[in-house]
Amino acid sequence: MSIRIDAGGLWEDLMALGAITEPDRPYTRRAFSPLFDKGRAWLAGRMREAGLRTHIDAAGNLIGRRAGKNPALPALMIGSHSDSVPSGGRFDGMAGVAGGIAIARALAADGVDLEHPLEVVDFLAEEPNEFGLSCVGSRGISGSLTSEHLAFCNPKKETLAEALKRVGGNPDGIAAARRGDIKAAFELHIEQGPVLEAEGIDIGVVTAIVGITRIEIEFKGRAGHAGTTPMRGRRDPLIAAARVVGWIRERALALAERGRGHFVATVGIIEALPGGSNVIPRSARIVIDARSEDRPLMEEFRRALDDESREAAAAAQVERGKFAVLSDNSPALCDAHLQKVLAESAALLGYSSRSMASGAGHDMAFIAQVAPAAMVFIPCREGLSHNPDEWASAEALEHGTRVVLEALLKVDVERDGAAQIS
Amino acid sequence: MSIRIDAGGLWEDLMALGAITEPDRPYTRRAFSPLFDKGRAWLAGRMREAGLRTHIDAAGNLIGRRAGKNPALPALMIGSHSDSVPSGGRFDGMAGVAGGIAIARALAADGVDLEHPLEVVDFLAEEPNEFGLSCVGSRGISGSLTSEHLAFCNPKKETLAEALKRVGGNPDGIAAARRGDIKAAFELHIEQGPVLEAEGIDIGVVTAIVGITRIEIEFKGRAGHAGTTPMRGRRDPLIAAARVVGWIRERALALAERGRGHFVATVGIIEALPGGSNVIPRSARIVIDARSEDRPLMEEFRRALDDESREAAAAAQVERGKFAVLSDNSPALCDAHLQKVLAESAALLGYSSRSMASGAGHDMAFIAQVAPAAMVFIPCREGLSHNPDEWASAEALEHGTRVVLEALLKVDVERDGAAQIS
Repeated sequence: MSIRIDAGGLWEDLMALGAITEPDRPYTRRAFSPLFDKGRAWLAGRMREAGLRTHIDAAGNLIGRRAGKNPALPALMIGSHSDSVPSGGRFDGMAGVAGGIAIARALAADGVDLEHPLEVVDFLAEEPNEFGLSCVGSRGISGSLTSEHLAFCNPKKETLAEALKRVGGNPDGIAAARRGDIKAAFELHIEQGPVLEAEGIDIGVVTAIVGITRIEIEFKGRAGHAGTTPMRGRRDPLIAAARVVGWIRERALALAERGRGHFVATVGIIEALPGGSNVIPRSARIVIDARSEDRPLMEEFRRALDDESREAAAAAQVERGKFAVLSDNSPALCDAHLQKVLAESAALLGYSSRSMASGAGHDMAFIAQVAPAAMVFIPCREGLSHNPDEWASAEALEHGTRVVLEALLKVDVERDGAAQIS
Repeated sequence: MSIRIDAGGLWEDLMALGAITEPDRPYTRRAFSPLFDKGRAWLAGRMREAGLRTHIDAAGNLIGRRAGKNPALPALMIGSHSDSVPSGGRFDGMAGVAGGIAIARALAADGVDLEHPLEVVDFLAEEPNEFGLSCVGSRGISGSLTSEHLAFCNPKKETLAEALKRVGGNPDGIAAARRGDIKAAFELHIEQGPVLEAEGIDIGVVTAIVGITRIEIEFKGRAGHAGTTPMRGRRDPLIAAARVVGWIRERALALAERGRGHFVATVGIIEALPGGSNVIPRSARIVIDARSEDRPLMEEFRRALDDESREAAAAAQVERGKFAVLSDNSPALCDAHLQKVLAESAALLGYSSRSMASGAGHDMAFIAQVAPAAMVFIPCREGLSHNPDEWASAEALEHGTRVVLEALLKVDVERDGAAQIS
């Protein structure tokens, strides 16, 4: 079947949505802001122009639905998010929403009716936001948006429940957002990393969305005068922290090369207190972000980090005051059958593809809890994301959208029950 | 000769001076503040009660002078400073000023006239202050308080020259502060380190006041998403910084054990930017404070640090963006003859003593440029200083003061010219 994606229209939609930004810090359209509402109103209009019926579900997701030939069948879903981080880009999230609308437009233009209903979704508040909770909308669809979450406050003391109401959601009936009627869900997204560009590959078929474990370690020593305290007898906690920083790099390199998928670990935060040039620190703190698509590998890393930080503290004669697991999520596996369908679709269309994990979190990590879910990555320039210079080419967007459309068409005619959560 | 030091009076003076403090953050009496003026007015009164004639010199030093039998002879000086850091202690600086007054009082009480004039000095603004210049008064005496220094401003845009006038100095005639008529200068001070207490020794005879070299190193890498950027190919500047932190510790330990005197090096400031847990840093900065009483040893360290930081940058595939020497002072050697006199005086009085370098800066580092200068350290509790818990015992203060008095009496009867700068 050959249904043409209007690559020009897709690109124009992306640029038009990107233009809805805080003028002083492009590209910023944070969830729950007036600009976010403006972007969504524009998106809903484009959805309707593409023949979709729009509504906001209880979890605040903007859903454009196209009826299928058989109203009793579960839906095919394609979605991502339209909110951004501050000073972010125009592609992260938006590419998947605009791609979904382009698919609906293509089906409408060619008068193609699918067997299953099609839903194009703008998931609410995927990015970190003022409430300190990401993936709000997709959590709702997975049934894991709790009353504790809804009580989170922004700095103005508005609750998430109140904000959800403002955008058209229904926090009092949040259970209704949970879906059990999705046959397959797809998300098209820029890679946000350098791999596809570096390898010259068109399409990344995502195997899993990594689990993220964040650990804070604090070493406590004894502050002292940097001039009068002899080297022997010092209890300098930064010596232990610095050793652990180097160890993390070496161990993560080794684990990444085990052949058990994506593994990375990063120290992005380091602090020595009191932080005076002439004072031996009394404490040193690091925050580690580790990500793995293989849970046992993460558990191995965590145990080894525990051991290493104890040893580093002992060697520096300081105390390991804190070893706190700040957050710890398991990886979310993409549906194996959908991965296969996507890879076959890419091959059929003449695009090169490879399997890869997603090192970043995505709405599909939650959707995968209630439906077979899959992701398609397209290359982005220099791996840049969350950055105004974030960029994907119009061709890459077209390729990714065509692969998703091809996969949708295949899955649409598969016997229901074939693509279950695997 | 046996002249009795009134240890009780010395202690009372210290406590009375310590009580002149910002009430909300003891012990705070910063240079140029109204409380500093109040403390000095009280000190000048105590000097006069001890038979000293007081005046403020052009560099703002409060000097209490006792005539000698021979008015043509150069002066014997004993001094330290009465200003404090914020939330400092009651001994750092004050011990030496109160000790000097106690000596004058003892001489007056016993009706002893020295051959040489005696000067008890409260050097102006030894501690870091709002003008960003320490040792203001002793710089003036050494002739190294420049017009550039006098143009330094505090946050209220007052110049140091204006502030100097406020405390009774004469910035327009600053050259007059320079002294060429000092036979010997002594400073009694708490050690501000743990050595004497740990070794159970009464008196430290200072060999040199270390030179301090401060170096800032910045590594520049490439920021990236902590999840999507594979370990291979990362350019993480914190990896280089952490390696250098560990290296500094090891190298300083080795240099300290070379047998060429005190050597310490400390990283008290470390920063990774942008400082997000999920972002590979784009830059990492450390500030190194290194101190040595041996200049060639410091130069060796500096060269090796230069090499090591280049190698660490290359290994981490980052750029060594900055290697900036923020300040670099040579060590000041204490006068060898005065050291000998002090050690002999301690022995005569039955006190244990040892030679040691001062790891902290002191007014004597400047005075040593124009006169034979020496320092006596006394133990302080746990090495604490610049801290409200700073503490030295009344006995330790008495011991130190007696040693200085004994040395003064010896030097007083030595042929002039014997104790030149060595």
